[in-house]
Order: sequence, then structure tokens, then C-alpha cells
Amino acid sequence: MEQSDGRARVIISGVKPEVDSGLFPAKAVVGEKVEVEADIFADGHDVITAMLLYRKERETEWTEAPMELTTNDRWKGSFLVIELGRYLYTVTAWIDRFKSWRKDFQKRVEAGQEDININLLVGANLIAEASGQASKVDSKTMQEWGKTLESSQTSQLDKVQLALSEEVAKLMDKYSDRQFAVTYPRELVVSVERVKARFSTWYEMFPRSCSNEPGRHGTFKDCEARLPYIAAMGFDVLYFPPIHPIGRTLRKGKNNAIKAAPDDPGTPWAIGAEEGGHKTIHPQLGTLEDFRHLVDKAKEYGIEIALDIAIQCSPDHPYVREHPAWFVRRPDGTIQYAENPPKKYQDIYPLNFESEHWHELWEEWKSVFLFWIEQGVRIFRVDNPHTKAFCFWQWLIAEVKKEYPDTIFLAEAFTRPKVMHQLAKLGFTQSYTYFAWRNTKEELTQYLTELTQSDVCEFYQPNFWPNTPDILTEYLQSGGRPAFMARLVLAATLASNYGIYGPPFELCVNTPREHGSEEYLDSEKYEIKHWDINRADSLKDFIVRVNQIRRENPALQSNQNLWFHAIDNGELICYSKHTEDLSNIILTVVNLNPHYTHSGWVHLPIEPWELDPQRPYQVHDLLSGARYLWHGPGNYVELNPSICPAHIFRIHRRIRREQDFDYYM
Amino acid sequence: MEQSDGRARVIISGVKPEVDSGLFPAKAVVGEKVEVEADIFADGHDVITAMLLYRKERETEWTEAPMELTTNDRWKGSFLVIELGRYLYTVTAWIDRFKSWRKDFQKRVEAGQEDININLLVGANLIAEASGQASKVDSKTMQEWGKTLESSQTSQLDKVQLALSEEVAKLMDKYSDRQFAVTYPRELVVSVERVKARFSTWYEMFPRSCSNEPGRHGTFKDCEARLPYIAAMGFDVLYFPPIHPIGRTLRKGKNNAIKAAPDDPGTPWAIGAEEGGHKTIHPQLGTLEDFRHLVDKAKEYGIEIALDIAIQCSPDHPYVREHPAWFVRRPDGTIQYAENPPKKYQDIYPLNFESEHWHELWEEWKSVFLFWIEQGVRIFRVDNPHTKAFCFWQWLIAEVKKEYPDTIFLAEAFTRPKVMHQLAKLGFTQSYTYFAWRNTKEELTQYLTELTQSDVCEFYQPNFWPNTPDILTEYLQSGGRPAFMARLVLAATLASNYGIYGPPFELCVNTPREHGSEEYLDSEKYEIKHWDINRADSLKDFIVRVNQIRRENPALQSNQNLWFHAIDNGELICYSKHTEDLSNIILTVVNLNPHYTHSGWVHLPIEPWELDPQRPYQVHDLLSGARYLWHGPGNYVELNPSICPAHIFRIHRRIRREQDFDYYM
Repeated sequence: MEQSDGRARVIISGVKPEVDSGLFPAKAVVGEKVEVEADIFADGHDVITAMLLYRKERETEWTEAPMELTTNDRWKGSFLVIELGRYLYTVTAWIDRFKSWRKDFQKRVEAGQEDININLLVGANLIAEASGQASKVDSKTMQEWGKTLESSQTSQLDKVQLALSEEVAKLMDKYSDRQFAVTYPRELVVSVERVKARFSTWYEMFPRSCSNEPGRHGTFKDCEARLPYIAAMGFDVLYFPPIHPIGRTLRKGKNNAIKAAPDDPGTPWAIGAEEGGHKTIHPQLGTLEDFRHLVDKAKEYGIEIALDIAIQCSPDHPYVREHPAWFVRRPDGTIQYAENPPKKYQDIYPLNFESEHWHELWEEWKSVFLFWIEQGVRIFRVDNPHTKAFCFWQWLIAEVKKEYPDTIFLAEAFTRPKVMHQLAKLGFTQSYTYFAWRNTKEELTQYLTELTQSDVCEFYQPNFWPNTPDILTEYLQSGGRPAFMARLVLAATLASNYGIYGPPFELCVNTPREHGSEEYLDSEKYEIKHWDINRADSLKDFIVRVNQIRRENPALQSNQNLWFHAIDNGELICYSKHTEDLSNIILTVVNLNPHYTHSGWVHLPIEPWELDPQRPYQVHDLLSGARYLWHGPGNYVELNPSICPAHIFRIHRRIRREQDFDYYM
Repeated sequence: MEQSDGRARVIISGVKPEVDSGLFPAKAVVGEKVEVEADIFADGHDVITAMLLYRKERETEWTEAPMELTTNDRWKGSFLVIELGRYLYTVTAWIDRFKSWRKDFQKRVEAGQEDININLLVGANLIAEASGQASKVDSKTMQEWGKTLESSQTSQLDKVQLALSEEVAKLMDKYSDRQFAVTYPRELVVSVERVKARFSTWYEMFPRSCSNEPGRHGTFKDCEARLPYIAAMGFDVLYFPPIHPIGRTLRKGKNNAIKAAPDDPGTPWAIGAEEGGHKTIHPQLGTLEDFRHLVDKAKEYGIEIALDIAIQCSPDHPYVREHPAWFVRRPDGTIQYAENPPKKYQDIYPLNFESEHWHELWEEWKSVFLFWIEQGVRIFRVDNPHTKAFCFWQWLIAEVKKEYPDTIFLAEAFTRPKVMHQLAKLGFTQSYTYFAWRNTKEELTQYLTELTQSDVCEFYQPNFWPNTPDILTEYLQSGGRPAFMARLVLAATLASNYGIYGPPFELCVNTPREHGSEEYLDSEKYEIKHWDINRADSLKDFIVRVNQIRRENPALQSNQNLWFHAIDNGELICYSKHTEDLSNIILTVVNLNPHYTHSGWVHLPIEPWELDPQRPYQVHDLLSGARYLWHGPGNYVELNPSICPAHIFRIHRRIRREQDFDYYM
């Protein structure tokens, strides 16, 4: 901080949230309180007044919110964000001469010091100075106070009472001298998105597998028929893999076979054919109008359609012909296909972000997003964003949000942690995570602590997926139905955003292509499937219950206040989430071993939860409906995975006892 | 990072050291390697080349040092600082197209791919492009390589060997295309000080108590006579409380009595009298010439004189008369004395850093420092810097160092942690700490971990004092001689900078003014003392030994690599320091209980220290001279505090055994 005046004595540093020295915005959703902290201090022992300044980006005037000293020179303030878009904030603080005087004066009085007339005069002088800055009315009041403090007619006791009165303090606050105020040199940004950015429940489904007759290619109409099923389960985002024409050249066959059979439909990620590219609908799914109809119909069920944008082309994509300069050309004149040497993906052409025509390329992809936005889509799952230039995403997301601030972008990047973090910093609303591969208590505790307690939570919003069309984990492969239930509960209660790839999830499909592979056998990526969603052993009803619990309990709708609790069994994990006012406390216990019953003693934070240690409290298992009376921090749980591997308890802080009834007197 | 070109794909973030987003310099000493780390990555899988750029501040050209990828996208590089003053550094990185090509090509070859001719052509093209940027000689070489790779006369094997040769790699490195290089947007600063900034051993002494006759006021001549004693103990900084004329108005008497007796000398911190102020020497100590003579004489003993600068005035200070505007005036026209209500310090006038004449005030205090620098002083202990404006210190230290970069400033601030950190960030070389009040194993471990393993170590260099004229801790009061020995060893081995206030320390003076007070009874602050430094029970010889160990063992001369080791007794603490090359490993074990013998099993990091787990190793107690054969990680120690409460072991990694001698064959 460069101070032009050597008398500006306050230091402001360590402001939070602040992502990469303010290079990137923090994240919030509409209706949330943005809590800002800073180290604020000065030399000596003077009293400081600190203000949080905030404004919507398009406004020019700051609004002020007072900050409060907590401990160790750390100050806190907050502001409510009520509008989509960007808010700016910073901090200003100054030595408050009147507050400093008042604090000292109070100590003198309390210590019974008698020679305080001179100190009263100092106070009177401060009031007189401030009155010069005051409104006419206030100025007059203040001048009279000054006179009273100086008057020999007033008793010392009366003077002391006046000098220390709240009335004087309030008006002196109003005209506090900010001549030497210091303002934090950076204006920080918080990007405010809609509530769904923080709380959403996703269902991924291949539209082509939705027909009710085996063998027939599903259509958007079939998808409409599936909506009641999806809505009943409690999902509010329905996400489709790419819905565009699929390339024919070098098309992959079943189980990723190098050569496709004539009737193989190909993978939806090999985008582009004669019929068109990323702005075209695969003809067998229906028309653009069908799509729009589906989008509208889904809305009626409280469901938003999310699309997958995969920036890559099949060799048949119109771009290849129309914009050859957007691809890397090899010395033999052919276009470079995707490779991860020695592996070759000859059916996919990557775009060249180092093309001289990069700007044209960027504009085209922006137009793809805008095209689907115009069809009513506001949620995009972006395929492999980590293999496209970072600065492209930063630009694209900002451009789209300028016009459509309600757009949500989910980054499908399974790569190194810093790359995943960077995409979130650049603007992706939500991010895929390593959740699928975190199975033990230690792994889950460590990972969730990083995601929710470290600075990462300022910009990174996890979306937990127990499975995806690419990921059938060993845990699900080997653990059967109880494993699916456990992973569902973990995803749904640990992360406020989660999703499943169905129907394979609810049908507990768990056969891998081969031992050691995470690919599904006969994967839907390469063929049309027909799923019997009405199978008796479907997890549908369990999912209904879990998602209902999420909707009814605000504690589960954010990742704040996630708290792991000790439990004396390595196979059991125990954690809670609570709302700030403790009106909703949800305690989850999961048996991570899908094969055996495990039991243990939980150790709960009775005091922070404001539970009476002398009285029992009720825990209500929202999964089974059972209610238990617990007492004190230590309580027993036992989970048989073949029945249900989890408890999701709501903690009731108050239970009735005899005194609460009329007959007790 | 604003990228003007969308093709610049590298991200550089999380650079360390970087204090407060680069607002303040990191610290180093001459001859040290400054290690710089950064997160560096790009989208996709291309290979990155990263360079650390550094230069002395007055130079305009960067020097480059290659950085290396360690793990998790973290890169490291380093540069040697060989000159006092400020060095700048930053990081630049780019996608290295040839390295990327080479990595992929190598994988193709390793996988036995046969259709690699086209890839050879891609490589040839890259070489041809680079040759356009090369020197004449290099360009010719490169063009020939290009031709060879394209030639149908050369065998594929020869082409592969050429393409992957170190020769080609080296020249392609030299002309690597940096067109889309990204440079970290901040130029960071490291402030390089002399070695004593990091490794110094202080002795605080009141010159007026140095005469060899009881009752006579000590002089600088007496101090000269004391030099051999101080040098023999191994101290290299001799620090004096203020040596200026002492005020007479409201002078404090013995034990801080409000009224001084006529012959009471007053406290040296009540600076200024008729005879002069901060640029004048108290007449009873001698003349300015005597002082300069002492400075020179001390140098002969390897000792530097450090002075105490306390920015405050007695009511008799010439400034009060000559510059009344530098003080706060009360409504009755009197000058405001120091207060911490309800306490009053009427013998001390603080300076007013909010004076309208603040700039004049700053200049005057700068002239005070420069005055003593001109007398040969280069080390200042600054009294209560936290009660003067921060921006003043930042300015003052920068101003002084511009001309005298070898000046060392020690901040005597015992206040809240963030205030102490701020002073270090602003430029104070060394800082007092909370060490005096950290006595238990847990307290010491936690505090030292914060000081040496967190970001704090980038700017904060602790100086550990077991006692000062203001601080006689309860531990020393109650623990007797073993407590003094334990605290000495802790200070001397935990911190590369430490000091004691003598002779009270070596004479184990430990009577407080009253129960519950940390003040010395009959404190030297208010009277002239006569110390019998030749007392048989003096710790002198022990101090000689400890300081000799510090001088002879480079591991103890910095705070890097401080490592706490498990020991199964809460009263014993065990830690080590080692040089980077492991040539010097010092293991310290201290019994923190000064009353009882304690024993326990240490657990040592055999593997990181590269000790053979199959063979014994020797530990040499540098305090007692004893040598022990240890084996493996677990070893027994026992410390009787009445003999010596500590071991300071040197670990010898190699001991001889039968095979090492001629007769074994």
C-alpha cells in the first residue's frame, strides 16, 4: 500500500475471500450472505473503525456495512447478494479518534481517576471539530454538547454521563473523521449465480435409450414420457450426452470396437456428420422443435435440460470442410486426429487453439453456446475443458454470462488438481471431482476437508457423481446394491450438487468390460440400450427418499458447515451439516463396507449444537423413519448394509418431558 | 493475467516466496540460495519450459535459471544472492513445441509404432522453423538435421536416433519458440542482508553497571575491559540500552518508584536532558570519542556494538523545547505524556506521528539513525516500534538501507502477532518473539512450527531471548540454575539468532520484584548494579560451550530444516537441524522440567538422514563430550537437570567397523 500521507496508519491485509490476489472472483448464489474477513490493525492502541464496501458492478457508489473485530486483529463483515452478476467489494478503515478517546476515558472513570476535566475538554474539542462536518441540525446538537462539557455550571458526573452517552457516540460515529482512512488497494469480485449453482440434483441419461420398445432409437418424445419417472425421483437437472449428428468415418462399434457394424449408432461424442454439427440435432432424436418442446415440458416437472458441449469433431463435421484452418494439418496434408501416444483416436479431430484464426474459432464456439441458450438451455456440462485453452474459457463464460447471467457451466475435467481448480477460477460454476475414487473414511474425510474447509471452497463448487458412462468404480463393481446405496447417500449428503448416470445407477448395473477396467460392459456410449426401469430391485424408491430429504433439509443444500465426527470404527463414517441458526442439523452415518454389519460409538458436538448435556435429545432417521432417544455426545449406531448402509438423522434439539405438560405441577 | 493473445496457454500462479501479493520483500542473506516455487501448467498434455528470471534491482537485464517440475504441477528453481540489497525475480514459461513433439515421438518409438515417417517430418519442420531464429553456425547445423530427417537416403533408425539425440534437444532448447510465453505479472523482491541478519549471538548489558568498583558509574572504558569476557563467551553483538542523557523531571527511582532519590540515576529510556537528546552521549558514560573507540575495540574481538533507539522523550529533551509541534498538546497547553489509562507515564513524552509536521519528524529520526551509523554502528534494536506509524518504519528502513545496506534492525515489539509480522514485512531484519513464554513441549513445538514451517519464515526472522531487563519469566524464577541452562540451550539451538541479558542471566539472577511480576527486584533499569561476573556458579563456561557449538555447526546457523522428533515423555523435547547436504546434523534433547530427572525413547528419522538402519551410528554430545553408539530410530536418553538438562548431539553417519581395517580380510 502506497500511502501518500504518512499519517494514514491503518494496515488492511489478508482479505478473504480473495482468489489469486483478486485475479478471479469468489462465488456466491442469490440470497446468500457474503462474509468478508480482513486483518485490520494500526500501531499503538487506538480504536479502529472498519467498513466493508460493496456494490453491484454497474453501480458507481459503494454501500457500507460495518465490520466487527473478532479475534487476533481479524475483522468480519458481510453483505447480502440479491441479484445475478458481479458484485465488487473492498475494505476501508481508519483510526477513530473519538472512539479511542472514549475507550480511554471510560477506563479513567472506571479507575476512579479524579483529574479528568482536561480529558473532558479533549472530548469536547473532538465534538467541536466533528460538528464542523455535520448537518445543520446535528451541528447544533453537537455544539451544545461541547458547551456543556466545557461549562463550569455542569457537574462532573453529568459531563461524564454525557460524554459516554450512546447518543454522543452515535452522532460522532456518523461524522467520524476519515481524513486518514486507508482503503484496501484491490477491488475484489464475487460472482453471484442462481441458487441452482449451489444446490442441484442431476440425472444423466442417453435419450436414444429412452424408447419403450427394445431396439427402437429413442426420441425426445420418449424422453418426455420419461420425465415423470425422473421428476418423481427428485432430480431437477436432466443432462444429455451430445445430441448432434454422429460421424460415420471411422465410427467406433460396440464396446469401442475399432470397426463399427453397419447398424452401430456410434458414440455421441463423435460429433458432426453430413446432417450438421454442434448446432444440429441428430435426426433420429427428433427436430429442434421437439427439443424445445421437451425443454418446456421438463420445466413443468421442475426439471432443466442440461446439454453436453464437447469441443471436438468427427472427420465428417462440416467445420472440417468449411474451416480447415481450425485444425492442425500434418505434413502430408491430412488433419491431425486426437492422440495420446501411442494411443490414436482417429475418429476425433481436436480443434487447434493455437490456430492463427483463434479469434474466429472462439467466436464460433460462443455462437454454439448461444444457439442452445436460445433454445431454452441454461445449463451446460462441458466435456474435457482442460484440453482447451484456459483463456478461451475465461472469455467464453464471461461473454455468455454478460447476456445470460443465469447460465451454469459444469466442468467435466478429471485431471490434475490445479488444472481443475484453474477451470473453476476461470468461471466454471460447478466441477466434477475425485469423489468416485474416494472410498475409505480417511480418503473421504481428507478430500471433503480440502473441498469445504480450505480456500478451494471460495471458487470450486463440487458436483459429486458416484458413476458416469465412463466411470464404473471398483467399489460399485464389487459391492453390489449396498455399495450403490452407500455411494448415493455419500454423494447426496456430502455435496449439495450431485448426480447419477441412470438408469444403470438405479438398476445397480455393475459389470465392467473386463477385469481392472472402469468401463461398462456393452457400454451405452456405443450402443442403444433398453432399460427395464420398473424392475423390482431398482433403487428408485431409495433415491426418491434421499432426494426428498435433500429438498426438505436446508443444511444439505450447501457445503458450508460440513463437520466430521469421531466414530470408533474405521468402516463407519459420521458427519453433519447444519444451518447457521442450528434450526436444521443433519447427521449422516454410513457403513462404508458393503458386505458386513458394523457398529460403533459416535462422538457428537453437544455443546456447539446447543444440546442440553443433561437431557436426552431425539434423532430421527429420515431414511427409515425410526426415532431414537440419544443422550450426551456418545451414542451407539449399527448398520447392516443388506438392509440399509446409512442413517440420515435429523437432530431434534428439544424433546418434551413431564414439565412440559399441564399435568406436571 | 491479461493475455493479449489467446494462444498464450500457460498459467503461472502460487509463486513462493511472495509476501502479501508481492507488496513486501522476502528475506535472504548473502551467499544463500533463494528457492522459488510456482504452479505452472497449461491445458492438455504439452510439455512446458519454465524459467526463473532474476536480477539485482539496479540491473535491467534478467538472468535466467531453469525451473524443474517437482510434483502436482509445482515447479522449483533457485538463484544465488551474492550482494547486499534488493534482487527482483519472476517466472516465465511457455509451451515447448519441440519438447512436446519429442516426448510423444519417444512414446511412439517405445511402443514400436512403425508409421512414424510423418512424425519425423513434423519434427523436421520444427527444426527448420527454429533454424530461422538461430545463429549462422547453429542454423546451418539445424538445416542439415532437417534435411537428414526428410531424406529418403537415411534409414529410419538413423533418423530416430538423430531426432531423439541430446545434441538436437540442446540446440532446440536454445532456440525454443517463446512467442506465446507467459510471464508472471508481478516482479517480486528479495531483500538480501548480511549473514549476521540470520546468524547472530547477542549480549545485552548496561554500560553504567560495568565499572569494577561497586558504586562507581560505569563508562565506555569499563565496557572495553569487559570485552574479553563477552568475546570469550562467544557473543558477536553487544547491545546497550540507550546511552543518552537521562531526564530529571519526574525521574523514576529504584524499583520504578514515582519519586527518585537525589542520587538515583533514572532509567536510560527516559531520554533527553539539558546535555542533549538522541544524538548525545550520557556524560557519565564518556565522550563520543570514547564510544567510537569502544566500537573499534569491540571489532577487534569480533563484536559489533548494537544501540537501542527508543523514539520517546523525557520532558527535558531538547525536542520538547525546539519542536513542540512534534508532540500532542493538551487543552491546558501542557504536553501529553504517555498513558495506558488509567496508568500514566509522566516522565515520558511520546512523539505525535499524526503531527502536521510528520515529514520533518521522520527526517529528524532518520538523522538520528544516520548519526550513529556514522559513529560505526550498524545494528539497532528498536524499542516498541509497534507504537509508531508503520509507514514511518517502512520509509526509514528503506532510506537507511539505500545508503547502508548492511544495517540490521531488530524490532522489540511484544504485541499481537499480526502487528509483529507487519513490522517484519516492512523491513525489520529480526524480531523479538513470544519465546520467553513458550515453555512446554506443545507450546514450543507449535510456535516453532509456525515460525519456521509457515509462510511467516519468508519475512520474519526470530531472535530468541530467554530474559530481558523487562522479562524475568516465572520459569526462570522457579526453576533455578537448570532452568537457565535449559532456556539457553533452547534459544541457542532453536533460533539462529538469540541473545541474553547479562550478567543477570549467567549469574542466574531470578528474584522478581514481587510475586506474579516479571520485573526484576532492584532492576538495573533504575539503578547502577555491580555484578560479580567471576562467581563460581556462573553459567559462563556453559555459555562458552553452547556458543562454540553454534559457531562450529552450520546446521544451527539458520532455521531451515528444523524438525521435531517424537519422544515418549512429555517433559522431554527432541528436535534436529541439518544442513541441506546432511554433512551436519545436530540433534537436541532438552529436559523441560528443571526439577526432576526424565528419560525417554527418541524416534529418529533414520532414512531421511541416510543412516544405515542395519548399522550403528555414533552420536556425540557436544555439551558433555560423551559419545554413544545408537542403532535404528529408537534410542534411550536420560537427563538429570541438576547435572545438565540437555544433550546437543552431533550425528555421525558413519562409524568404523572391522571391515574398514587392514586386519580384516
